[in-house]
Amino acid sequence: MATTIRTATEADVPQILAFIRALAVYERAPDAVTATEDGLLRDGFGPNPIYSCLIADQSGQPAGFALYFFNYSTWMGRPGLYLEDLFVHPEFRGLGIGRALLQQVAAIAVQRGCLRLQWEVLDWNTPAIDFYKAMGAEFLDEWRNVRVSGEALDRLAGAAVAEPAETEPTK
Amino acid sequence: MATTIRTATEADVPQILAFIRALAVYERAPDAVTATEDGLLRDGFGPNPIYSCLIADQSGQPAGFALYFFNYSTWMGRPGLYLEDLFVHPEFRGLGIGRALLQQVAAIAVQRGCLRLQWEVLDWNTPAIDFYKAMGAEFLDEWRNVRVSGEALDRLAGAAVAEPAETEPTK
Repeated sequence: MATTIRTATEADVPQILAFIRALAVYERAPDAVTATEDGLLRDGFGPNPIYSCLIADQSGQPAGFALYFFNYSTWMGRPGLYLEDLFVHPEFRGLGIGRALLQQVAAIAVQRGCLRLQWEVLDWNTPAIDFYKAMGAEFLDEWRNVRVSGEALDRLAGAAVAEPAETEPTK
Repeated sequence: MATTIRTATEADVPQILAFIRALAVYERAPDAVTATEDGLLRDGFGPNPIYSCLIADQSGQPAGFALYFFNYSTWMGRPGLYLEDLFVHPEFRGLGIGRALLQQVAAIAVQRGCLRLQWEVLDWNTPAIDFYKAMGAEFLDEWRNVRVSGEALDRLAGAAVAEPAETEPTK
């Protein structure tokens, strides 16, 4: 039974959304997904796609996906590849599909001149952590992830002076 | 003495590189910067810029910068804004310049339809952590940052089957 890794097309969008929802359930955040097919279509398959996606088929059945985009390292002065999602449906685990997806993403990173491939993993997801360690990954645990969203983002944005800004220092 | 926040131009590239180097020194990684002016020019000011940059001038002197790009939230099905670097030169601290830069980045995020603004901070950088908390930021400490680079990335990429890939499962 062969695994095929292929680039996602517009026709895969319903399946991509199903994978995103299944991953959110696995990550204990089943209610966090507000993405829609329209949004995924617009952002991944329009004239200026924001993300790219690979689908793994197992004997013709969609078994997993990898969704990524490019970021930037100012230290290296080079683009990097950021892997937002990597997921294999539970019934297809243990077949090397996750490994094949990660290898393909790494190959795309190298082809595109990226010197690094990055992603995040939940600290309780021991099987994934062990898998990534076996792939040669390092863990950047001195860096904390920070986020502003919702009302805090609106408040921060509202305090900005219109660009180009001319402000008095706050003290 | 007024602070002006403005969009960086090609002419700022030498100053941007100087800021990147000064930030790397502050982050205890002075040898980590291999970026060049040519690379920063190509990636930020070419036909398809990978990053954007704001410069803060204090009384006409470049005092700090914010460098960002867009990422993607599959849960939200929306782009997000990722702040790669935020830095104010030590001699210009305490004037509210970092706050003004962060506010402007937040305003750009909101204008661009982003529902969140994210970045990273070193766990020993207490002044920055306190500053971000005061701005309403949350810390996503259950997520660990993972990276593959150098030989490990080449090894992983080399194991990929050419796309479209047809592989035998590993077990």
